[in-house]
Amino acid sequence: MSMQAEIIAVGTELLLGHTVNSDAAHVGRELSALGIDVLHSCVVGDNPGRLEEALREAFARSDLVITTGGLGPTEDDLTKETIAAVLEMPLEEDADSLARLKEYFGERRMGPNQYKQVLLPRGSQALPNRIGTAPGCYACRADGKAVAMLPGPPRELLPMLREQLVPILAARTQACICSHMVRTFAQGEGDAALRLAELTGLANPSTATYATDGEMFVRVTAKAASADAAEALAAPTLARVRELLGDVVYGVDVDNLESVVVPELARRGQTVATAESCTGGLLAASITDVPGSSAVFRTGVVTYANESKTRLLGVPEELLARVGAVSEEVARHMAAAVRERAGSHWGIGITGIAGPDGGTAEKPVGLVYIALAGADRTWLRVMRPQGRYMGRQWTRRRAVGHGLDMLRRALTGLEVELQASTRGRF
Amino acid sequence: MSMQAEIIAVGTELLLGHTVNSDAAHVGRELSALGIDVLHSCVVGDNPGRLEEALREAFARSDLVITTGGLGPTEDDLTKETIAAVLEMPLEEDADSLARLKEYFGERRMGPNQYKQVLLPRGSQALPNRIGTAPGCYACRADGKAVAMLPGPPRELLPMLREQLVPILAARTQACICSHMVRTFAQGEGDAALRLAELTGLANPSTATYATDGEMFVRVTAKAASADAAEALAAPTLARVRELLGDVVYGVDVDNLESVVVPELARRGQTVATAESCTGGLLAASITDVPGSSAVFRTGVVTYANESKTRLLGVPEELLARVGAVSEEVARHMAAAVRERAGSHWGIGITGIAGPDGGTAEKPVGLVYIALAGADRTWLRVMRPQGRYMGRQWTRRRAVGHGLDMLRRALTGLEVELQASTRGRF
Repeated sequence: MSMQAEIIAVGTELLLGHTVNSDAAHVGRELSALGIDVLHSCVVGDNPGRLEEALREAFARSDLVITTGGLGPTEDDLTKETIAAVLEMPLEEDADSLARLKEYFGERRMGPNQYKQVLLPRGSQALPNRIGTAPGCYACRADGKAVAMLPGPPRELLPMLREQLVPILAARTQACICSHMVRTFAQGEGDAALRLAELTGLANPSTATYATDGEMFVRVTAKAASADAAEALAAPTLARVRELLGDVVYGVDVDNLESVVVPELARRGQTVATAESCTGGLLAASITDVPGSSAVFRTGVVTYANESKTRLLGVPEELLARVGAVSEEVARHMAAAVRERAGSHWGIGITGIAGPDGGTAEKPVGLVYIALAGADRTWLRVMRPQGRYMGRQWTRRRAVGHGLDMLRRALTGLEVELQASTRGRF
Repeated sequence: MSMQAEIIAVGTELLLGHTVNSDAAHVGRELSALGIDVLHSCVVGDNPGRLEEALREAFARSDLVITTGGLGPTEDDLTKETIAAVLEMPLEEDADSLARLKEYFGERRMGPNQYKQVLLPRGSQALPNRIGTAPGCYACRADGKAVAMLPGPPRELLPMLREQLVPILAARTQACICSHMVRTFAQGEGDAALRLAELTGLANPSTATYATDGEMFVRVTAKAASADAAEALAAPTLARVRELLGDVVYGVDVDNLESVVVPELARRGQTVATAESCTGGLLAASITDVPGSSAVFRTGVVTYANESKTRLLGVPEELLARVGAVSEEVARHMAAAVRERAGSHWGIGITGIAGPDGGTAEKPVGLVYIALAGADRTWLRVMRPQGRYMGRQWTRRRAVGHGLDMLRRALTGLEVELQASTRGRF
């Protein structure tokens, strides 16, 4: 049975744009993985009248309504009260939720509004909150219309969604879907869409391309009667996507480059050290964002000033004076020196001009040199702004991506120094 | 004249949750700053039928509809075609947009679908795209109903929105609004809401509290006939918020702690150096994310492994063996050593267990020591998980926040070592 769902995010701060609605994305992703179609998603302010209107519209056309936000202790938090009224399920104290709330506060004072969080619609199932104070809940009426209420803070919503709501919904739906994300680096979306043209028109499996800042990815989705059948249906398309895109693909169903590079290093018992100038620690922070990275990363230096490059990495003052800190030579020296001093298998050096200031005609803002040093040689890539400076943050992230991509390619025996002209815009 | 607007975000990837709808937040923020009420915001997939339905509903109840996404070169990009049909404004080639597109591609091959991006509804005003290929546009019908179409990628949307659409809309609206954001660190939302109770019930100026991961902020908004009158109306409330919250307030209308700390250091001609273990470069990356940070930051080290702590910072092996790397003593040593070796005015040292693995009964996951070394003394804060581990990313970000907050407080002569018990949960 195919189920239709919609998402109602509650909170004036979402309409005003003070908060980004990442909750809807989390919910959409989990529902689509269950094969539940999400055809509507909207935002409603902290206004009971408009929330009621949105709820009535949603229940009229969908089987399942998921709300996010408005469960907290303040007077603005009116989601449960409004849903209880629309569904005619009066609010009642939930004993387990009350016990959890008391435990949460322990000896600290419980604020006057805290208690209302443990009032849930009669006959609903509480979804305990591992992180915060407001429990969620799931209620299914006799006519099969269901509603799930989740808290607004993503830290609270995510575990409740994945650990508690998804199993409940999985039991209700039959159609099985599988979905895989193919991730690439240094590949333009337009070019990828052309390469994948033979696939993007098909409905099942479907193939779609997405571009986010500096990366392009491809989603392959198949729907069938069982999970195995869906996987079997997706497999040839997935293989064809990899074949058409080639070795710019760095992984399938992975989060990012660092989550590929860290286990690749660990599998080989190898380590990497980092020496950063314009990225200022972002490369080290990306690597160490991966749990277990301590096995492959021991040392990083952020040599932002010239004297730090000389003191920590032995970059000769003469070289800095002659070719400048932002140069191929200095990037190569940084990579090789940090590798040697840290006693690691690999060293990555990054130096450039992240901007917005500090550029010259010869060395414009956005110019970055990225070097990777191994035992036998040092590779280099150059990011050139090509007339269009993409901003400080983009430049820093992209440079980090290049460093990780170079290491990935070196580890797996691929060509490391890609040419911008053949691989889309660097 | 009060204007009502709504936002329609177009893209199946938004419903599926592959992309987070940050565009709606950007648009909502700019519109509310213009005093334009946003009462509805929704997401529609790449489906012309449902987009048409959403457009007709929106035009029926609002004066202004802003769409995001669906302007690109692929076959899924149908926003303009659908709006042109609904508004009965046929698409025509826009000569300036075509010239810009040709310039963008230069000698590179233009894909077969690129041309359709320069077709705009007759009588509309093109909004050139500084970053990507798809221009936006603004169209106002004779009956005063207006529509603005913005591209989906935030990098493209943001400059177009701020530089081109906002001036157009500002000319149409009369009511002036001013809005200020008060940012705090180490202050719980519930506690803040209680402290601000005398203000949060008032409508103009309005005062609202928001909590995001690890921080709490307060928005004060006033509406009046002129910008000056709105500012004058907001001023006493803003002052009262600061008075009620005290020195946990680190800034008003600032982005984050680092964007306060970097100029504070620069103003004093002072510098900071960083020594990081569990945060793995995130503190250095945060500081260097601020343009101009090279004046105050020269050196950072990421001493993830014990031997790095000994080699780069001289932490005695005996100390590491006796008290462990995650200890008050090692944090203090790291801060003092990096300060001394970098020759900087301040040193920050962070060591802890970001998790999810590596904890023990005595030193649980989430335990982090943060030390700040100055000329005369070294201060320390401890993050204790209090039975609830908040995740690797939260723990790392929060530790970075503590390091920056300690430096901010030391620079401005405030007490540095806050107690968890009196200041909300660390």
